[in-house]
Amino acid sequence: MHDRVGLNESDVWLGHLGDALEGGDIPAVLALFHEDCYWRDFLAFTWNVKTVEGKASLEDMLEHTLSSTRPRGWKVTRIEELDVAESRIWFRFATAAGEGLGIATLQDGLCRSILTTLQSLVGHEEPSGRRRPLGVRHGASRARRTWTEERAAELSGFELGQDPYCLIIGGGQGGIMLGARLRQLGVPALIVEKNARPGDSWRNRYRSLVLHDPVWYDHLPYLPFPEHWPVFTPKDKMGDWLEMYVRVMELVYWGGTECVSAAFDQEEKRWSVELLRDGKAVTLRPTQLVFATGAYGPPKLLELPGQSNFQGEVHHSSQYRDGSAYAGKRAVVIGAASSGHDVSVDLWEAGAEVTMVQRSPTTVVRSETLMKFGFDIYSEEAVEQGIDVDTADLMAAATPFALLPPSQKALYDRIRAYDADFYRKLEEAGFLLDFGPDETGLLMKAYRTGSGYYIDVGASQLIIDGEIRIKSGVEVEGLTAQGVAFNDGTEIPADVVIQSTGFHSMHEVVAQIVSREAADRIGPCWGLGSGTRHDPGPWHGELRNMYKPVAQENLWFHGGNLALSRFFSKFLALQIKARMEGLAGPVYGAPATGLRSAPLASAR
Amino acid sequence: MHDRVGLNESDVWLGHLGDALEGGDIPAVLALFHEDCYWRDFLAFTWNVKTVEGKASLEDMLEHTLSSTRPRGWKVTRIEELDVAESRIWFRFATAAGEGLGIATLQDGLCRSILTTLQSLVGHEEPSGRRRPLGVRHGASRARRTWTEERAAELSGFELGQDPYCLIIGGGQGGIMLGARLRQLGVPALIVEKNARPGDSWRNRYRSLVLHDPVWYDHLPYLPFPEHWPVFTPKDKMGDWLEMYVRVMELVYWGGTECVSAAFDQEEKRWSVELLRDGKAVTLRPTQLVFATGAYGPPKLLELPGQSNFQGEVHHSSQYRDGSAYAGKRAVVIGAASSGHDVSVDLWEAGAEVTMVQRSPTTVVRSETLMKFGFDIYSEEAVEQGIDVDTADLMAAATPFALLPPSQKALYDRIRAYDADFYRKLEEAGFLLDFGPDETGLLMKAYRTGSGYYIDVGASQLIIDGEIRIKSGVEVEGLTAQGVAFNDGTEIPADVVIQSTGFHSMHEVVAQIVSREAADRIGPCWGLGSGTRHDPGPWHGELRNMYKPVAQENLWFHGGNLALSRFFSKFLALQIKARMEGLAGPVYGAPATGLRSAPLASAR
Repeated sequence: MHDRVGLNESDVWLGHLGDALEGGDIPAVLALFHEDCYWRDFLAFTWNVKTVEGKASLEDMLEHTLSSTRPRGWKVTRIEELDVAESRIWFRFATAAGEGLGIATLQDGLCRSILTTLQSLVGHEEPSGRRRPLGVRHGASRARRTWTEERAAELSGFELGQDPYCLIIGGGQGGIMLGARLRQLGVPALIVEKNARPGDSWRNRYRSLVLHDPVWYDHLPYLPFPEHWPVFTPKDKMGDWLEMYVRVMELVYWGGTECVSAAFDQEEKRWSVELLRDGKAVTLRPTQLVFATGAYGPPKLLELPGQSNFQGEVHHSSQYRDGSAYAGKRAVVIGAASSGHDVSVDLWEAGAEVTMVQRSPTTVVRSETLMKFGFDIYSEEAVEQGIDVDTADLMAAATPFALLPPSQKALYDRIRAYDADFYRKLEEAGFLLDFGPDETGLLMKAYRTGSGYYIDVGASQLIIDGEIRIKSGVEVEGLTAQGVAFNDGTEIPADVVIQSTGFHSMHEVVAQIVSREAADRIGPCWGLGSGTRHDPGPWHGELRNMYKPVAQENLWFHGGNLALSRFFSKFLALQIKARMEGLAGPVYGAPATGLRSAPLASAR
Repeated sequence: MHDRVGLNESDVWLGHLGDALEGGDIPAVLALFHEDCYWRDFLAFTWNVKTVEGKASLEDMLEHTLSSTRPRGWKVTRIEELDVAESRIWFRFATAAGEGLGIATLQDGLCRSILTTLQSLVGHEEPSGRRRPLGVRHGASRARRTWTEERAAELSGFELGQDPYCLIIGGGQGGIMLGARLRQLGVPALIVEKNARPGDSWRNRYRSLVLHDPVWYDHLPYLPFPEHWPVFTPKDKMGDWLEMYVRVMELVYWGGTECVSAAFDQEEKRWSVELLRDGKAVTLRPTQLVFATGAYGPPKLLELPGQSNFQGEVHHSSQYRDGSAYAGKRAVVIGAASSGHDVSVDLWEAGAEVTMVQRSPTTVVRSETLMKFGFDIYSEEAVEQGIDVDTADLMAAATPFALLPPSQKALYDRIRAYDADFYRKLEEAGFLLDFGPDETGLLMKAYRTGSGYYIDVGASQLIIDGEIRIKSGVEVEGLTAQGVAFNDGTEIPADVVIQSTGFHSMHEVVAQIVSREAADRIGPCWGLGSGTRHDPGPWHGELRNMYKPVAQENLWFHGGNLALSRFFSKFLALQIKARMEGLAGPVYGAPATGLRSAPLASAR
């Protein structure tokens, strides 16, 4: 039964929902929702990261999940009246598996959208606060092992033939955050990373890189950045923080380790993974395998006919470090998204003569403007109002992807009006602007394709001033001995060409390490199925293949920016822990192959 | 003028205080206090760490400080009614120099004690929260220096002949916390430490050491321990945390560096300091010199006649690492305070036969009991009630040292009744118990002498069980070939003797590095002047020579446990920053030599 905290309509609504769910009365549940409704669930009901849309889909979801979920104890923790007809209810609840949190948005007394999230597993709560470890066994014992001895044993364990339950390929921010969550849940996990030290994935990037998102959005779990941390973290400072984090969170992390291949043993339900650790072959047999190799997969390289005759250098942006070798040289940067802009500035600052080649339009938003209008719940103001990062994350997740475009379009309409003069000058300089196929701006592009945008921290003014030249609306035909040739018949002389042409999907890493067949079965990662450019339908409603079961048993993808990695590492870690403890229920809406699952929902 | 927040008596009292202070009306101020009153001030009025006691002393203090302090803007932030006749007012205020916080305790409408603290310097507020740095200069610039380049320049600066404004000798927890505060205040500071790496001062201690104070009491400034941190931090984990802290707080830290000598140039008002860095001589000329060489000075070693004929080993506890070499051997531990107990347990766990020699009585309190009764404001319960570590620190400081004994005696009366059975058994085993000359227990011993106590985490049970033998109430006469001889005519055979005999005062380090004359002029550190054993009077009312001006210009002492180092590092850093910026007012009650100061108060 729910506990009523007032006589508010919202509160009564949650009481009815709790009663109907507890009584297994699905029609009564449906009566509490609008026809056009959304139920977003992270593990609590579906053991999946899943949004069901519309009453028919909701009915199907509940029919498959309600009896095993056994939800109860729905309790309002906070009510926000958004306007006369709309309110947001924050609540907690419990299921057979553990404790949950959620947010429901009511319009005219009925639910438009609801988020339900599993937050902990009963009997396996994290050892934090009142559950924190003592750090020492009081009393004397001749068999005492000190912390140092326990830690040394743990660090050497996987070297001596023990198998981690979970192997994480990739020790960047995503792998590290997931490793920290698994550690706190007591899952034996090993992170392997081809770079030598944690943080090198940031350190190895170009000299002038700073995070484009602000500090309030970037916190890692358990150990938030301190209050004097800069708004935009410089890349090497981020590298140091990650290295420190691995140490104090006591992760097991093998640097200098490449993953060569992995094969799944269908009978034993374990992986056989071949690693090269400092050049030496090591085989491990983990049960779960996580690909955390970066938000994107391998670098995407343009075929450049004539490259063998080109007398300059050609690099992909991921290999570019700094421009000091190019002072006074002519540089052509192919690509006009984030790294294209950043690399162009870096080259310009080093004294190169820079042309940026823009093959398709880019969404640009000034950093100051985005901070002002776009990060309201991740800001100093929010912190002062008591909205910590976990609260903000839940609030952000409460809006299903399907409902984001209208509010994003409104945001970008506002931004475009506010910076009209800036955008006019940028277009006058020959720059091709866009705000997405439906004018919804940067965030939707990030979710749909992870490409095609730039948060301006200085490059745009250089473009406006003609310091960085723009060659737009053309395709590259190839290289000549002296430069780059375009399909409009022109040619630009170049001493160095930087391909800021993006990355393939993460599932291409699976093709390299597991098999082409597995990669194709799983399909691409990222994107929502919006039916827009580079994000083909059908509509999927969540990020494809990320943080949830895919069409290969015991294989997972983790990644994204710091914020997504932070938030979803919790749910991915809980899925892995639940499997280790035999607590995971059937997956609703899982891909057809491999996993025991309920049939796919008939959702649109 | 103050802003009234209610019509409470406490609030009215603060209004009157603010009006009287602002009006310079000292008799009106005095009329608000009991005859037997205490004003504890950290920098706000006195530019000192100073408690004045009684109305006459208070009058003297105000006469010397009020006109330059110009206090104003007294505002109640919280009122606690402690009982019908007693209340505690939390308030903020401002002075000519900056912002302050304080707490006043009223009894029957008049003030019994008040704490005033300076918290920031106007125009030099720490860059935190809304003042945090941006991390990047937006816009492009060919003169851009990245964070990495700035940091590299800073790290190499002192090597290339720049002088730090402040040199901190000793890179343990005290030096590190002070360094972090100075960093945030923009004071160029260098920490030098003889061990190679930050944290080694913990790592080098005995194998089984864990902190005896709980995590809630141990936080470092800016970067609190996370919620899963163990209650009692193991020494090597503490070492790792300190090493990480130095890195992410961006301190400049020279490991492997010994301070050989330091001389003060009276004309230039600078030090000339000779260092040996990795064996190479380096001279630096800092303006301020801080001794943070540990709460105590050099190891105190007993003269042991006959030591040259002794066939076993003799070590001081500070050199003791682990007992693995002593399995089956006979060990005699001289000294029965914290390290004597810990070393005895470590030897026993390693399989040695251990006798602990107790030359004088020890205060023992069981860790669980102390957690239960003694750490109320530093606990998970306190955190849940919103009492964070800064709040708890201020609350603890609100009671002047002179008023601590009665409440500490009450606490130990309670503890002795609660653990009566434990104490009876310990005495039956031959252990000499005491609770201080006035029965006030452990904390007062810590402040008065920093010695003579043990927080029991297991040794006492081994003593009760006879596993660790006690030889008590004797003095050591010397060593024979085979063991230790006592003044009662007995002898104990020994293969190894560990002197857990404590440390000399920190001012002995000054004698080694500066001069005997300077050390004697300054006098011993620590202690309150309580007139009890090893803490001779006259009454001083604060810790002698710690965190405040001493009888040598531009020389400071910093140290103590994590809690004291954390709390007082703020006020020591503000004193140093104020001198760098020329903002420090005259020091009230400063020692006679060297510093421009007001005359010593006529306080008792």
